[in-house]
Amino acid sequence: MQWNVPAGAAPGSSLAVRYAAVRARTEALAAPLSPEDQCIQSMPDASPAKWHRAHTTWFFETFLLLPHLPGYRRLNEDYAFLFNSYYEAAGPRHARPKRGMLTRPSAAEVGEYRAHVDAAMAQLLADPPAEALPLVELGLQHEEQHQELLLTDILHALSQNPLRPAYDPDWREPASPAGPARYLVGAEGLAEIGHASPGFAFDNETPRHRTWLEGYRIADRLVTNGEWLAFMADGGYRTPTLWMSAGWATACAEGWEAPLYWERRGEEWRQFTLGGLRPVDPALPVRHISWYEAEAFARWAGRRLPTEAEWEAAATLPGFAAATGTGWQWTGSAYRPYPGFRPWAGAVGEYNGKFMVQQMVLRGGSLATPPGHARLPYRNFFPPESRWQFSTLRLAEDLA
Amino acid sequence: MQWNVPAGAAPGSSLAVRYAAVRARTEALAAPLSPEDQCIQSMPDASPAKWHRAHTTWFFETFLLLPHLPGYRRLNEDYAFLFNSYYEAAGPRHARPKRGMLTRPSAAEVGEYRAHVDAAMAQLLADPPAEALPLVELGLQHEEQHQELLLTDILHALSQNPLRPAYDPDWREPASPAGPARYLVGAEGLAEIGHASPGFAFDNETPRHRTWLEGYRIADRLVTNGEWLAFMADGGYRTPTLWMSAGWATACAEGWEAPLYWERRGEEWRQFTLGGLRPVDPALPVRHISWYEAEAFARWAGRRLPTEAEWEAAATLPGFAAATGTGWQWTGSAYRPYPGFRPWAGAVGEYNGKFMVQQMVLRGGSLATPPGHARLPYRNFFPPESRWQFSTLRLAEDLA
Amino acid sequence: MQWNVPAGAAPGSSLAVRYAAVRARTEALAAPLSPEDQCIQSMPDASPAKWHRAHTTWFFETFLLLPHLPGYRRLNEDYAFLFNSYYEAAGPRHARPKRGMLTRPSAAEVGEYRAHVDAAMAQLLADPPAEALPLVELGLQHEEQHQELLLTDILHALSQNPLRPAYDPDWREPASPAGPARYLVGAEGLAEIGHASPGFAFDNETPRHRTWLEGYRIADRLVTNGEWLAFMADGGYRTPTLWMSAGWATACAEGWEAPLYWERRGEEWRQFTLGGLRPVDPALPVRHISWYEAEAFARWAGRRLPTEAEWEAAATLPGFAAATGTGWQWTGSAYRPYPGFRPWAGAVGEYNGKFMVQQMVLRGGSLATPPGHARLPYRNFFPPESRWQFSTLRLAEDLA
Amino acid sequence: MQWNVPAGAAPGSSLAVRYAAVRARTEALAAPLSPEDQCIQSMPDASPAKWHRAHTTWFFETFLLLPHLPGYRRLNEDYAFLFNSYYEAAGPRHARPKRGMLTRPSAAEVGEYRAHVDAAMAQLLADPPAEALPLVELGLQHEEQHQELLLTDILHALSQNPLRPAYDPDWREPASPAGPARYLVGAEGLAEIGHASPGFAFDNETPRHRTWLEGYRIADRLVTNGEWLAFMADGGYRTPTLWMSAGWATACAEGWEAPLYWERRGEEWRQFTLGGLRPVDPALPVRHISWYEAEAFARWAGRRLPTEAEWEAAATLPGFAAATGTGWQWTGSAYRPYPGFRPWAGAVGEYNGKFMVQQMVLRGGSLATPPGHARLPYRNFFPPESRWQFSTLRLAEDLA
Repeated sequence: MQWNVPAGAAPGSSLAVRYAAVRARTEALAAPLSPEDQCIQSMPDASPAKWHRAHTTWFFETFLLLPHLPGYRRLNEDYAFLFNSYYEAAGPRHARPKRGMLTRPSAAEVGEYRAHVDAAMAQLLADPPAEALPLVELGLQHEEQHQELLLTDILHALSQNPLRPAYDPDWREPASPAGPARYLVGAEGLAEIGHASPGFAFDNETPRHRTWLEGYRIADRLVTNGEWLAFMADGGYRTPTLWMSAGWATACAEGWEAPLYWERRGEEWRQFTLGGLRPVDPALPVRHISWYEAEAFARWAGRRLPTEAEWEAAATLPGFAAATGTGWQWTGSAYRPYPGFRPWAGAVGEYNGKFMVQQMVLRGGSLATPPGHARLPYRNFFPPESRWQFSTLRLAEDLA
Repeated sequence: MQWNVPAGAAPGSSLAVRYAAVRARTEALAAPLSPEDQCIQSMPDASPAKWHRAHTTWFFETFLLLPHLPGYRRLNEDYAFLFNSYYEAAGPRHARPKRGMLTRPSAAEVGEYRAHVDAAMAQLLADPPAEALPLVELGLQHEEQHQELLLTDILHALSQNPLRPAYDPDWREPASPAGPARYLVGAEGLAEIGHASPGFAFDNETPRHRTWLEGYRIADRLVTNGEWLAFMADGGYRTPTLWMSAGWATACAEGWEAPLYWERRGEEWRQFTLGGLRPVDPALPVRHISWYEAEAFARWAGRRLPTEAEWEAAATLPGFAAATGTGWQWTGSAYRPYPGFRPWAGAVGEYNGKFMVQQMVLRGGSLATPPGHARLPYRNFFPPESRWQFSTLRLAEDLA
Repeated sequence: MQWNVPAGAAPGSSLAVRYAAVRARTEALAAPLSPEDQCIQSMPDASPAKWHRAHTTWFFETFLLLPHLPGYRRLNEDYAFLFNSYYEAAGPRHARPKRGMLTRPSAAEVGEYRAHVDAAMAQLLADPPAEALPLVELGLQHEEQHQELLLTDILHALSQNPLRPAYDPDWREPASPAGPARYLVGAEGLAEIGHASPGFAFDNETPRHRTWLEGYRIADRLVTNGEWLAFMADGGYRTPTLWMSAGWATACAEGWEAPLYWERRGEEWRQFTLGGLRPVDPALPVRHISWYEAEAFARWAGRRLPTEAEWEAAATLPGFAAATGTGWQWTGSAYRPYPGFRPWAGAVGEYNGKFMVQQMVLRGGSLATPPGHARLPYRNFFPPESRWQFSTLRLAEDLA
Repeated sequence: MQWNVPAGAAPGSSLAVRYAAVRARTEALAAPLSPEDQCIQSMPDASPAKWHRAHTTWFFETFLLLPHLPGYRRLNEDYAFLFNSYYEAAGPRHARPKRGMLTRPSAAEVGEYRAHVDAAMAQLLADPPAEALPLVELGLQHEEQHQELLLTDILHALSQNPLRPAYDPDWREPASPAGPARYLVGAEGLAEIGHASPGFAFDNETPRHRTWLEGYRIADRLVTNGEWLAFMADGGYRTPTLWMSAGWATACAEGWEAPLYWERRGEEWRQFTLGGLRPVDPALPVRHISWYEAEAFARWAGRRLPTEAEWEAAATLPGFAAATGTGWQWTGSAYRPYPGFRPWAGAVGEYNGKFMVQQMVLRGGSLATPPGHARLPYRNFFPPESRWQFSTLRLAEDLA
C-alpha cells in the first residue's frame, strides 16, 4: 500500500487507541439490534449486521494476525469459510446470498470472536512490525465502511417488516439549511484529482493525475425532497424520454413512483428512516434514489450530474455545502481505474479493482458515514439501479 | 365440521387439559432453538419456527376467541396480518416468502402472544359454547401439524449452515427391524376408505366411500437406505427411462444424485439429521426423497407405489409394519377430493380443499409427527418434487 | 401393443390407402401456411408446423423403416437428432424450446423428407411383416394427434402477431345447438371403463377395468361463452375463494381476466380463431380455458367437473351432446395409470407413461381433432394451467 | 443535426444515387437467406433479417416521408407499430423479444414495403428540402449500421442450428498479416478527440473536445487466435483473479471456456463463421469475445485495454494496423457522453443518448461493417457480456 505513516508518530500505541475506538463503535452501532435483527439478510446485496461484525474481524485475523502474530490460531477454522466476503485469494467462501442462513454462530458468539481477535490485536499492536501498519489502518478503514453498510443494510431489513420498526426512535437527521440553490463556477483547465495528502487512501483513489475540465457550474447544495416532489408531480416517473433506456425498463419492472422507502398515506408521503416512518420533509435533501432516477431528475431540471472530476475540483470552492455528512452524491462518471492505477499487492488487491465495471461513482459521504472517514477524493461506487444506499444528488451544467 | 364430540365427555375441562398439553409441546419443541434459529426462513416452502408458534396462536385468536369470547381484543392488530397463512376469507396477509424478514416481534414477544391467547382460551374453555368445540379440536390438530412442520423446517434451515449444527445432539432414530421385505396380499373387491370413527378427522378424509380394488401385494416394511444405495450404485440417478419425464427434468436441473441431506465424505455417505451429520445406516428406512425419486425407485425395483386406497385397506393387515411413526409414505395417488367431498363451512373451508391439485398423497406418519396425531385415513400431500419432508416409500405390485 | 388387427382384412393394401390419406391430410393442413409460419415456435410447449411434419415422418423412419425395411437408409442422419421429440431410447435430440431455430431444413426440404419416407413406406406396406402392422397404425394415430397440435400451435403462433392474421379466413365453427343445459343421471354402481373394442387404443386407455361410481348428474351440453361472460361479470376472475390456490396464483401472475385469445374492443369481446378475430358468440361453447378456470367456473356455478370415469360412463347416455368434435373437456381426474397399466414394450413405451403426473385428464375431442380419431375411452392430458388447447368444460354434480 | 453538407454538392441527385446503392446493398445481403432464415430471432438482443429490412424502411417513412413528402401515406398503418425499434417519441411498438413472431408480413411483403418507400424517396430526393438532407444521410448511416447487425444476427441465428449451415460457403476472411506485435508510443499531452471533419457523424461523437493523456504504448495489431489459445491453455478461463468480479460470475454461469462460436472437435477447435464451421486459424485475430474476456486476457498478458481516447489518438500513427475492417476493438472506456454532448433535436435524439450507461465503448470497425461506414471517431458500444458482435481486442500499457 502506498500511503505513508506520518513521521514521528508512535504508531503502535496511537493505533491501538484508534483500533479500540473503531471496534467499539461497531459494537455500539449493533447494540440496539436484537439477535434476530442481526441475523437476517433482506436481499443478496445486503448483509446481516452480525455478518458485518464477524467479517471485519475475519479481516484482521486473516490479513494481520495469521501473517504477523506468531502462534496465532483462528478461534474457529470454519469462520475462514463463513466470513470471507469475496477474496478469491483467501480461499472458498460461503455463498453471499446465503449469509442470512447463519443462525450459528450466534450474535453473542460473534461477540466472543471479536473479543478473541481484539485481544490478539492488542498483543500485535503493542509492538507492531512496520510492514503491518498499513494493513491495520486498512482494516480500520474497512471496518468503518462496514459501519455504514451495517446501518444501510439494517434500514433495508427493517423496512421489510410491516410493523416498520425503528432502529433508533430518537434518530436525528443532520441539519440542512434550505434556500434556493446557487451555482458555483468551475473553471476550464487542467485539474489534478486523486489522493495526494500523506494520510490513508484506498487504491482506487490513486494515482493522483491530471485531467482536463471544460468550464462548468455546480450547485452549492443537494436536491431537496421538495424539488423531488415537483419532479414527481410533473410526471417524472411516467415520462420515458427523461430516462436512460435501461433505467426506464427498471423503473417499469419494479414499479418505481417515488424514492425507495417512501410510502403514500392518503395525501401525504412518508419515509421510512432509521428513526421509523416519518413525514417527508421538503426542506431536506432527497435520498435513497438510484442513479437512474438522479439522472432523469437532472434531465428534467435541464441540467446534468457532475463528473467525479468536476465534483472533486469544486468541492473545495467556497460555498460548496454538504460535501460530506449528508448523502453520497451520484456523479456522471462510470467507475473505472484512474490512469496508471495499480491495485495493492497481495490478496487485498481484490479490494477495489475487480469491481471497476458496470458501476457509477458517488462522491461525498452520508449521514451514515463514520465521522472522519470521508475524504474528498473518496470514490464510492454502486450499480445504477441501487437505491438502498444513502444516495442523493447535486446538479451541474456546462458553462457555455 | 362433521366429527362428533364423544357423548358423556366433560368437554370443557378435558379439552382444557389437552389444550394445555398441545400448546406446551410446541414450546418444548422450540426450546432448543435460539432467537436466530427461530427467525429464519430457508426457502419459500418452509416457515420460521417463531412463525409456526405465532400462526398457531393466531388460529385460536381468529377462529375461537374473536367469535366466541365476548370482549376479547387482539393483543396486536398487526398480528392479524403477519400471522395469517393463506386464509383469503380472513383478510390480507404478509407475503409467504417474506416470513423470515420478521425479526420483530421477537421470539420472546411471540411467547407473550402465546401466553395472552392461552389465558383467554382458558377463560373460553372454562365454559365453552358447544359450537366452538369442534374448532378447538381443529385448532389443536392444526397445531400438531405445525409441530411436525417446525421440525421439518428447522432441519432444512440448519442444513443451510456449513457448520451443520444439530437441533438436538441426542436425537434418537426410531428403531426399525431389518430383514427382507415380505409382501402382504390385498384382495380384489369393493373397499371402504375414508374417515369413519367418531373422533376427529380433517375434511379431506371424508366422506367415507366405496372404491374398487384389484388384487395387489404390498410390502410389510419401508424401503431401506441399503436398498437405496443399491439403486444409486445401479445408476438410478443417471437412467432417464426409470423416471417420469418431469421428474427427470427436475433431477437434472437440481443435480440430484442422492436423497436430500445426504453428503458424500470420501467413500462414505452421511446424512444430516436433527441430531447432526451422521453416517447413513443401511438398515434404516430411506427418507427425504421426492415422489419422483420414490416412483423411479419403484420402477427400478420392478414394482410400483401403492395407491392410497390400497395403502389404507392394507394398513390393518397383520404384519404391516411402520404404518406410522417412521416416515410419510408416498402413494401413487394424486391428491383430489373424495367423491361427495364438501369442505368445511366458513373460513376453515380453505383448510384443505384449495390445495387439491398438483400434489401427491402420502400416508402414514413420521418420526416427527406428534404422538397420537396420526390416523390411518389421514391424507398428507405434497408436490412431487418435495424432498424436505420426512418422506419415504413402501412398494407394491399387481397381484396378477 | 395390445390391439388386434381385424381378422380377414387385407392389412397391407388397406393400410397403404389409409397411410396415404393421413399423410396427405397433414400436408393439406400445412398448405395455407407460408415457410415463415411453419418455422416459428411461439412458446416452449408449442412446436413449429414444419417440425410436426418432420417429426411424424421421423416416427415412421425410426420405428418402421429402419427395423423393418431392409436396406433403408435415413435421408439425412442429422434428422434423427433434429426430429426426435422425447424418446430417450432413440438417442439424443434437439432441445425442445429451440425447435423454432431450425430454419433449415426448409419447409420444402421437409416435404422432400416426407416424400422419401412415403416412398419407402409404400414399399414396406406392399408386403408388411405382421409385427410391423400395429406400429404402422400407431404411427398414423400419432400423426393424427400432431394434426390437431399443428392447428393448436399455429393458432397460438398467429395470435402473437399484432396483425392477427387468419389461418383460414373461411374457417367455420361447428354448429352448436343452444338452449338450457339438462342434467343426465349416472347411476351408482360398478362401471367398466377403458378400451375394450378390437380396434386401436393407446396404452394409457388400458386395461379396461372396474371402478365404483356414486350416483351423479352430468350436463348434456358444454358450458357456453354466454355463461362464461356471466361468470366474468360476477367477478369470477377476481374472487380468490372460487379458485384452487395454485390456480389463483397463476391467474394473478399472468393477469387472466378472460379465456385465452379473448380481447376487449371497447364494449365488445372478440376472440382470435383460426378464422381470425371474431366477435365472441354467446351461444357457442367456451374454449381455450385452463383447468384452473374450468374448475373455478364449476364452483361458481355450484357444481363440479365430472371425473373421467363419470364422463366415459355417461358419454353413451341418450342426450349426451358434443362428446367429440367441439372441445376437449376438462375432467376432475388427475392423469395417472389405470390399475394394471403396462406401457408398450420398446421405445414406444415412452409414448404416454412418463407423463402421468402433474396433468389433468381431458375427454372427448375438439373441432381440431381429425375425423375418426376420437374415441370415448381416449385420455387426453395437459397441465392445469394450459390454455392453448381447444379445451372446454361440461358440468356435473353429486346425485345426493 | 450538426454535420454540414459539403458546399457545392448537388445533394439531391448524388444523394439519390447513394440512397439507391445503400438500399440495394441491404437487399443483396439478405438475398442468400430463405424466408425462414429472415424470420427468426435467436435471442432478445438480435433481430430477424426481415425486421432489419423493414425497420430501416420505417425509418425513412417516419422521419423523412411523412414530414417532408406531401400526401405520403404509410403503406400499412400497422407497420408503424411493428417496425419502430425504440423511439418513445414515435409511439408504441411491438415488444422487442417478440420480433421473431412476425411471420407476416412475409419477406416478399417486406420487399414490397421497401419498394413502396424507395419510390416515394425517389420523389423526395428529386427535389429535397434542405432541412431533410441531414436526415436522409442519417437514414443511410442507420441502414448501414443495420447491414452489419443483419450479418451479426444471422450468424447467431444460424449457429443455433445443429446443422451449422453457412450463410455463404464462399465467405472469405480478411487478410491479416501475422508476426509479433509491436508497441507504438502515444505521447503524454492534451489531445483532441471526437468528430471534426465536415462529413457525417453521430451525435455521440461530438463535440470534439480536449482530453489529457498520460504517455502510453499501444499494439500495432490485434490479438490473435493463437495468443488466445495460449490464454486458454494457461487456465485463463479457470482463474478468477484474472477477471472482473461480474465477469467471473457471468463466465461461470454461462460456462464460458472459449470465445463464442468455438467448438471443440476432438483435439481441434473449430469456429462457426459466416462461411460455416472452419478450423480456428491461429494467425487470425480472435473475435466474438466479451469485454470481460478481453479485459481478463489483457490482465493475463500483463497489459490493459486502451481507453477510447488513446485508441483514437493512436489510430493515425504509422504502423497502426487493422484500425477498421477486421473487428470492433473493446476499449477500457465506459460509454458516457462527451463533455458538452447534446443529443439531436426531435425524435432522433433518442438515437444514442439514452443508451449511455452500462456499456463499454468499442472502436474501429469489423469485417461486417459496410465499406466506407467506419470512421476513426466512431463510438460503438455494447454491454460487457456481449459476445455475438464481431468484437476483438488490441492491447495497451502505461508508458512509465
